[in-house]
Amino acid sequence: MEDKKNIRMVLRYDGTRFLGWQSQRGGNTIQDILEEKILLMTGETVRLIAAGRTDAGVHALHQVCHFHTRSGLPPEILHRGLNSLLPPDIFISRVEYAPPDFHARYSVKSKVYEYRLLNRPDPDPFLRFHTWHIPFPLNLPEMEKCLAPLSGEHDFSSFMSSGSNVRDASRYLMKAEIQAAEDGLLVMNFQANGFLRHMVRNLVGTLVEVGKGRRNPEEFLQIFQARDRRLAGAKAPAHGLFLKMVYYDED
Amino acid sequence: MEDKKNIRMVLRYDGTRFLGWQSQRGGNTIQDILEEKILLMTGETVRLIAAGRTDAGVHALHQVCHFHTRSGLPPEILHRGLNSLLPPDIFISRVEYAPPDFHARYSVKSKVYEYRLLNRPDPDPFLRFHTWHIPFPLNLPEMEKCLAPLSGEHDFSSFMSSGSNVRDASRYLMKAEIQAAEDGLLVMNFQANGFLRHMVRNLVGTLVEVGKGRRNPEEFLQIFQARDRRLAGAKAPAHGLFLKMVYYDED
Repeated sequence: MEDKKNIRMVLRYDGTRFLGWQSQRGGNTIQDILEEKILLMTGETVRLIAAGRTDAGVHALHQVCHFHTRSGLPPEILHRGLNSLLPPDIFISRVEYAPPDFHARYSVKSKVYEYRLLNRPDPDPFLRFHTWHIPFPLNLPEMEKCLAPLSGEHDFSSFMSSGSNVRDASRYLMKAEIQAAEDGLLVMNFQANGFLRHMVRNLVGTLVEVGKGRRNPEEFLQIFQARDRRLAGAKAPAHGLFLKMVYYDED
Repeated sequence: MEDKKNIRMVLRYDGTRFLGWQSQRGGNTIQDILEEKILLMTGETVRLIAAGRTDAGVHALHQVCHFHTRSGLPPEILHRGLNSLLPPDIFISRVEYAPPDFHARYSVKSKVYEYRLLNRPDPDPFLRFHTWHIPFPLNLPEMEKCLAPLSGEHDFSSFMSSGSNVRDASRYLMKAEIQAAEDGLLVMNFQANGFLRHMVRNLVGTLVEVGKGRRNPEEFLQIFQARDRRLAGAKAPAHGLFLKMVYYDED
């Protein structure tokens, strides 16, 4: 690590055609593509660490990652060079030196995820990759009643997908809100110090069941408090989800 | 025509992967796909006529078309059935009986085209198929100076692409405006009783040259008045263009 620089990058991507952030055999993940372009520019095989390992089809408006490099290329050159090599669905908005101990994942203070629903009878061809279309009217006040108890420090096991190995499923949720925008667009925001596997999508899936009248807010609360992942509703599809912001101590 | 019904449809489509409206060998046009689905439902080979024959890559927020049919299927059934058969980038928002003499093209009173520019240094992966990205700052007041002389009845030959056979190149333009929206989005609207081939894209291409300072509003006016298609700027790309509205006498 001695003579290596720590580089921090901020980027956004349309996740539609990617297999998510994390590197995997067969490539076609954001991490694989970025590491390949960094290798092209620096001759170095680096390992990128991201603030949030977004799943296949999930988008990012503001993702943060870091890597250590011996390359002497200044950040501005890396920035311009990488953007010229990257496909148009990935764009790097900032590249800069970070303190040696900056870690894109462990230094995170909080992250914001946004989920976009299109709640109206007609689908919209222009939003088909970036909203979850729900043609049945959702009861917004009922959904909102479910949000208040989520705030604060809680065990979110009920909204964690299986396949994850976490010792402690408690997370601190600072914000959970729904906003109705124009033309049937419903935007849900969740800010927390961390998120369990598929937590937002499981929350949204269960909230939508409340909105449809299949469950009521009391049942939602029972599911939440049961800490039993088998009770929650089906998880919402990936293509409505955006990693919206990442906050660090310095911010 | 005796016992045939005249059916009018309103639809929207994301033109990204299509070869435009008009039928051609090899298919993959909006017209081909719609006619194929109508054949599936009615057993009839119909011929669709659209208000505007959008080019490859051009989008529609509100396109209107009509066809004559012997089928007794009521409009609601056609509406639901066709939407269930169509790919998600085409959506029919209305199907109804039209008067026998209604003609989607010849009955048009005016059409509105919208052109979307993204004018800021950074591109946006989420807008890449629906805006023309111009990273250099555009001089909006200079561009606006060009618009006033366009209003009214004029010969627009200078902004007509070759390959079109029109006897009369004069069109009546009711509206030409630019609006700056958030995050560098510039939206241009053109309303006219008719448009020549590539007229909006040629206008936008030339206006952008004015915005970049390569030409001034006086030169723009000279080009306009010269009625010479060789003088105008390069035409703007298809993917920023939307057929936004079509008006008929009844509206």
